[in-house]
Amino acid sequence: MDPDAVAKAFVEHYYTTFDSNRAGLVSLYQEGSMLSFEGQKIQGSQNIVAKLTSLPFQQCKHNITTVDCQPSGPSGGMLVFVSGNLQLAGEQHALKFSQMFHLVSNQGNYYVFNDIFRLNYA
Amino acid sequence: MDPDAVAKAFVEHYYTTFDSNRAGLVSLYQEGSMLSFEGQKIQGSQNIVAKLTSLPFQQCKHNITTVDCQPSGPSGGMLVFVSGNLQLAGEQHALKFSQMFHLVSNQGNYYVFNDIFRLNYA
Repeated sequence: MDPDAVAKAFVEHYYTTFDSNRAGLVSLYQEGSMLSFEGQKIQGSQNIVAKLTSLPFQQCKHNITTVDCQPSGPSGGMLVFVSGNLQLAGEQHALKFSQMFHLVSNQGNYYVFNDIFRLNYA
Repeated sequence: MDPDAVAKAFVEHYYTTFDSNRAGLVSLYQEGSMLSFEGQKIQGSQNIVAKLTSLPFQQCKHNITTVDCQPSGPSGGMLVFVSGNLQLAGEQHALKFSQMFHLVSNQGNYYVFNDIFRLNYA
């Protein structure tokens, strides 16, 4: 399958799930997964989703500006680099962000091994 | 060695070299390396440096805002995620950017296997 198509499908699935049912992201991570969220490192699917569901906003909408994708090495992993903006309910201005994912294949299914998120302050 | 220290040392070396002697970046890439520059994919150290040295500006200065680092898997690789701004000579406003590197170890020395660069337009 075309890697760029896999990356776009992953990105769409990830942010749609984030914006509609954040707890559902748990199935995209595994125990060895790591999230760096604004500089804070969190390991393991349960801990990662506990962090994401405890963020101090309820409704949000990610709008994606760019998606870049590269193979991460011979083992079939994939790096996905996203930029976009995040609109929080009740806030006038959207927040710009960048995020990268390292997708690793496990018996044909990808999961997120690395996830690094940063807001891009003006 | 502490991965965060390796990442910070790499980032400092990379951007100092970029800003003072762009052609010197060639030693940080290898034949399998890939750069995505504003959506354009370029493979191989010579092609990557040809792209970087042909960018339509001479003097520039990268100012780094954040550096995040995670191990990329069991083989000792490292993901480095950078945000910052880029000041071009003669331009009033700096350009915000995000960039990620996948550093892969080759007999104890790291080289850049993946490099994805994006400007973050306002």
